[in-house]
Amino acid sequence: MWQLHQFPLCPFSRKLRLLMGEKGVSYELKRENPWEESDELWALNPAGRTPVLHDPDKNLTLCDSRAICEYLEETVERSPMINGTAVGRAEIRRLVALFDENFYADVTAPLLQERMRKRLVLREPPDSRVLRQAMKNAHAHLDYIDWLIDNRAWVAGATMSLADLAAAAQISVADYLGGIDWKDHGPTQRWYSVFKSRPSFRPMLSEKMEGIHPPAHYAKVDI
Amino acid sequence: MWQLHQFPLCPFSRKLRLLMGEKGVSYELKRENPWEESDELWALNPAGRTPVLHDPDKNLTLCDSRAICEYLEETVERSPMINGTAVGRAEIRRLVALFDENFYADVTAPLLQERMRKRLVLREPPDSRVLRQAMKNAHAHLDYIDWLIDNRAWVAGATMSLADLAAAAQISVADYLGGIDWKDHGPTQRWYSVFKSRPSFRPMLSEKMEGIHPPAHYAKVDI
Ligand SMILES: N[C@@H](CCC(=O)N[C@@H](CS)C(=O)NCC(=O)O)C(=O)O
Ligand SMILES: N[C@@H](CCC(=O)N[C@@H](CS)C(=O)NCC(=O)O)C(=O)O
Repeated sequence: MWQLHQFPLCPFSRKLRLLMGEKGVSYELKRENPWEESDELWALNPAGRTPVLHDPDKNLTLCDSRAICEYLEETVERSPMINGTAVGRAEIRRLVALFDENFYADVTAPLLQERMRKRLVLREPPDSRVLRQAMKNAHAHLDYIDWLIDNRAWVAGATMSLADLAAAAQISVADYLGGIDWKDHGPTQRWYSVFKSRPSFRPMLSEKMEGIHPPAHYAKVDI
Repeated sequence: MWQLHQFPLCPFSRKLRLLMGEKGVSYELKRENPWEESDELWALNPAGRTPVLHDPDKNLTLCDSRAICEYLEETVERSPMINGTAVGRAEIRRLVALFDENFYADVTAPLLQERMRKRLVLREPPDSRVLRQAMKNAHAHLDYIDWLIDNRAWVAGATMSLADLAAAAQISVADYLGGIDWKDHGPTQRWYSVFKSRPSFRPMLSEKMEGIHPPAHYAKVDI
């Protein structure tokens, strides 16, 4: 069985869990805190990062969430998530990169730094200037997602794709950390609440990161 | 014809140019300085980044170098660069991510900041502490590439792949900026000098970034 090395607020691990949930691939969770720089994580992944997908029976180790998503797409037929024409697939991958890289750098990473690492590891108070900027950035990213969803059925086109999973993964971590102000983002909010009620998503919503409490609306699927 | 929006020291654009060179895809260069935040770049790419591959006749715009590489791989049969079994392809993509993300963040990005942006844009002297750290990081990354090449014919396995192109693209920018000390990296140096003599690579070696001069060894293919 696959073992997914992750921690509850790693957005790239969440993207993978959504994909494996949609595809019906079973796995067990292995807790890994990348900031502890454990020898085990470095031995599995020379980049020292989560997620790692590892099958000890087959002696198979896969690293980097996008490489892993492509692998699952190539090996599991059910629920294709990088589908369509070459141009359509390029659009899905462009948006996955936008959420994995830009949304992460602008919003999720500073929130994780200020509200998770400073609390659990550095034992410092968060910097409210950085938090304010991250929330402003979130607002701009949600404006763009609103626009996408106003113009298409799903984020990258007519069907659900890996771009939706990548967006939902980043948004869910930012929302857990109190970084999303849903006011004025009706389209994204409706898309996200449909998403939250999917069987692939629900288990994650009840998981907690020790010592960090999400806002009351976080796990509610009807708002 | 494709237009590639780029600047001479963008490593992600170099990776694409190597891939298009190997595949025999022709294109023209469009100069773009992402730090100028031009409206034209933002209109083409909502992430405001280079590279962008654009075909005005077909009204087709592709963004994110990895998404573009996958597109070229799917649409151009010649010289496949993400090839082999699903596990082999996952290894190629893992290494592309390692060079695009980790080598870039640890080595190329600080060198670009200190030796290019500070000179051309901010008009400040470089921070020698940051430069020393980037060169130390380069050393550690080259150790890993030495190890890969000692154990495989090419970076990701028995044949040349996108991982080689991604590594060469980052290394060539770091080398241009004086960030690579080749001493003690025989395997990578030999692999890189083979690479430099390829027709896909040679044109880039003679291009200059205005105001920034590469070290004497940079464009020599025999060392
Ligand atoms: N491109 C990687 C990014 C993974 C990543 O940044 N993971 C974070 C946790 S959310 C991490 O392990 N950071 C520790 C580090 O970079 O040293 C992926 O998609 O898997
Ligand atoms: N993941 C992107 C990264 C592109 C990237 O970081 N490009 C740099 C130039 S080397 C850039 O435009 N930076 C400006 C910015 O991020 O605002 C890709 O592979 O295309």
